[in-house]
Amino acid sequence: MIKVVLLGSGNVAYHLALALKSAPNIELVQRYSRNDSSNAYFDADIPFTDDLRNLERADIYVIAIKDDAIEDVSGKLSDVGGLVVHTSGSIPVDLLHPGLRRGVLYPVQTLSLLQKIDFREVPLAIEVENPADESLLLELSSSLSNHVYKLSSAEREKLHVSAVFANNFSNFMFICAASFCAENNIPFDILKPMILETGKKVQYLNPIEAQTGPARRNDQLVINRHLHELEGERHEIYKLLSAAITTFYQPKMNQHGEKL
Amino acid sequence: MIKVVLLGSGNVAYHLALALKSAPNIELVQRYSRNDSSNAYFDADIPFTDDLRNLERADIYVIAIKDDAIEDVSGKLSDVGGLVVHTSGSIPVDLLHPGLRRGVLYPVQTLSLLQKIDFREVPLAIEVENPADESLLLELSSSLSNHVYKLSSAEREKLHVSAVFANNFSNFMFICAASFCAENNIPFDILKPMILETGKKVQYLNPIEAQTGPARRNDQLVINRHLHELEGERHEIYKLLSAAITTFYQPKMNQHGEKL
Repeated sequence: MIKVVLLGSGNVAYHLALALKSAPNIELVQRYSRNDSSNAYFDADIPFTDDLRNLERADIYVIAIKDDAIEDVSGKLSDVGGLVVHTSGSIPVDLLHPGLRRGVLYPVQTLSLLQKIDFREVPLAIEVENPADESLLLELSSSLSNHVYKLSSAEREKLHVSAVFANNFSNFMFICAASFCAENNIPFDILKPMILETGKKVQYLNPIEAQTGPARRNDQLVINRHLHELEGERHEIYKLLSAAITTFYQPKMNQHGEKL
Repeated sequence: MIKVVLLGSGNVAYHLALALKSAPNIELVQRYSRNDSSNAYFDADIPFTDDLRNLERADIYVIAIKDDAIEDVSGKLSDVGGLVVHTSGSIPVDLLHPGLRRGVLYPVQTLSLLQKIDFREVPLAIEVENPADESLLLELSSSLSNHVYKLSSAEREKLHVSAVFANNFSNFMFICAASFCAENNIPFDILKPMILETGKKVQYLNPIEAQTGPARRNDQLVINRHLHELEGERHEIYKLLSAAITTFYQPKMNQHGEKL
């Protein structure tokens, strides 16, 4: 039985609490949060404290709090003895307080309170500073998910950059579409099935194969007509992305100008 | 019974043929294609011709061919009598030959041969030039899909611009993520569940609410660290999109510099 103390009250802590509770070989012995306003969301039988001096003894302390508070909170855990992991994609392992046994357990998913999720399908990127801690964190993470990846802090940083493109920027493309629809009195609902399919397609098809549209086929007539419809930032975005796509699919030439 | 002749051999024609065949009040009387190389994909009992002079009589002729061939092919249908519709998002209705009863039936979905799709869930944007043809095209389209929208050519052009953002550009964000992962030996599989969830979220949550990440929270430290990792076009794209997101979420001020 792996004893775990969970620190946090946000979306990641919420989903982790559910996953930790339902794993057979894990005991969630306590949850800490600065204040108890979030308690309504959490299972009432998880022992709770709002005082870092009252933490229970555990094998692993999981810090699922805002990035900018991780360093500070970890500094107050110097006596705990167990392995201390944070859950952030963008914070290196060594931002945790130096005296600790340090590691990372980063769930690579966009988690919100509203949305039920099968945590066993959430990829976990894990890291430990001390090789002696690896088997413990591996046991914990593979009890939570079927998809565990060992990544260094440097690799996790690259993954996080990729996640910004894959999630943040693609969602902003949906915002551009939705707001352009709204301005033109076109129901955004028309595009929702296509958006869902765009995400589904990538599950089995390389996105390089899935790309379609005027930029992919270098249809400058349509591109220019669309640019004429757009102003400001959306114009700039359309222009830059169309040029990037066209370049990406341009036939590569050798030094004699022959197609490769 | 609505008699339909389908022209085309690509992805849209393929999915339309399946949907037309399975609708109870539609008879798919014939399919035309310039050549018969695509026939293997299509139901063998759909009568086929590769000669536009041999088209059967029908109530509706559905032209599901490449954009740049629509004008030319429609010019050869001047004797057909029935309603002639094309299926393109980006071609106005009046590019069809002037002598025809003209209309549009645009399936707003990314369709590929590989992927099975529930056509009843594919939104259809329809248009007729002559109001007398509306009930016929409405009957056909609502026999194929639960989601039929009447849009003018001008509105369909705006919708198509939005679809470029929603599908083409979001897919290119997946390409950026996948290629950056590949260059850094990180399996792209780690990001696939997040990509699927990004598309699912928009089905019930406004993308403006769903946005997360460093640009949303105006975290310039992380943005600059990420920019440092990126070169060339991906650098430009990250910079432009982060700035656009940050601006989008900046608190709006009145003329006295007070938050609105």
